[in-house]
Amino acid sequence: MILGIVRGNVVSTRKLDNLVGYKFLIVEPVYRKHTDYLIAADTLGAGVGEYVLITKNEPTQYALEHNAPVDAFIVGIVDEPPKVTD
Amino acid sequence: MILGIVRGNVVSTRKLDNLVGYKFLIVEPVYRKHTDYLIAADTLGAGVGEYVLITKNEPTQYALEHNAPVDAFIVGIVDEPPKVTD
Amino acid sequence: MILGIVRGNVVSTRKLDNLVGYKFLIVEPVYRKHTDYLIAADTLGAGVGEYVLITKNEPTQYALEHNAPVDAFIVGIVDEPPKVTD
Amino acid sequence: MILGIVRGNVVSTRKLDNLVGYKFLIVEPVYRKHTDYLIAADTLGAGVGEYVLITKNEPTQYALEHNAPVDAFIVGIVDEPPKVTD
Amino acid sequence: MILGIVRGNVVSTRKLDNLVGYKFLIVEPVYRKHTDYLIAADTLGAGVGEYVLITKNEPTQYALEHNAPVDAFIVGIVDEPPKVTD
Repeated sequence: MILGIVRGNVVSTRKLDNLVGYKFLIVEPVYRKHTDYLIAADTLGAGVGEYVLITKNEPTQYALEHNAPVDAFIVGIVDEPPKVTD
Repeated sequence: MILGIVRGNVVSTRKLDNLVGYKFLIVEPVYRKHTDYLIAADTLGAGVGEYVLITKNEPTQYALEHNAPVDAFIVGIVDEPPKVTD
Repeated sequence: MILGIVRGNVVSTRKLDNLVGYKFLIVEPVYRKHTDYLIAADTLGAGVGEYVLITKNEPTQYALEHNAPVDAFIVGIVDEPPKVTD
Repeated sequence: MILGIVRGNVVSTRKLDNLVGYKFLIVEPVYRKHTDYLIAADTLGAGVGEYVLITKNEPTQYALEHNAPVDAFIVGIVDEPPKVTD
Repeated sequence: MILGIVRGNVVSTRKLDNLVGYKFLIVEPVYRKHTDYLIAADTLGAGVGEYVLITKNEPTQYALEHNAPVDAFIVGIVDEPPKVTD
């Protein structure tokens, strides 16, 4: 999984039917040197600035009630910025 | 998912039978520092210059009526360039 | 999907039984800044120097008659080098 | 798979129900030049500083008793730092 | 798929039960500019210094007799270093 910080959201009116009801958040990965932003679907209600745990690719489907073309999903909101031991 | 901008399209006459009917767009990811272009299948009618939301890998299949060897699919057209909170 | 140019092929005599019959081509991605070469299975008969469209990961299986441990497959040969609108 | 060193852990109280019971470790890949940290679920009891073997994406599911939205899983704890022949 | 050279192996005594019997090799990709090492399971008996063809992610499962949490598998040993046409 990837640890990231919510930075904003994406609004899409013209989208596939089975994506209705998801919120799409812009997330900046942390503890990554390349920091490529990604877009993750959210149902937990994560807010801008919160640390989140994101699952990618096919395992996202086990977080959904019905299969949907979603490849990044916020599976947890992290309690506080984790500490890393060097 | 990846947020990107449509930059062109790819025409392939010699292709697999189950790819007939898809349009293949060249998309430049945004909010990524590496900006590797990718090719995404489209049925929503996205045009050059539009912001699109792309799902990759196996979850693409949940966007299709019949399974097909497509690993990037345009699942939404974004209303306007999203704002990012630093 | 990835757009690439065929640069050569790989010959493997000692391989898994369910890979017999595939040709394995070395492909250089284009419109990517990192240009990591990859190896893609081919049944369309793509030749060195041709532009090809490659599907990766699990969706490759929908291009095969029987499932096989192939994670990159040439699904189309591109008619001509595509133009990109900046 | 990826070889990595455990560097810490992530605590998430608000998370999906089917993630309860997993420990989420921060892992630094080794033998990779980019060393992007990732978060991997663990049931083997790996500790900070130990070398671990991580499986990613859909094959993680074959390590679980019940499917869960987990895309990185610690499948083994490595006995000692491996030697690489140049 | 990825073309790589075997550089060593990883020994893990504490590992998941369904990984018993696999050998885990450290492989350096070739024809890639970033050369991130990866760990691939092997049943073909590839030795250090040999060129191998590796399949990644879910398609690995089609190389196995029983599903296992393996995301990189050596599917072929390459006869000789391939030549690349520029």
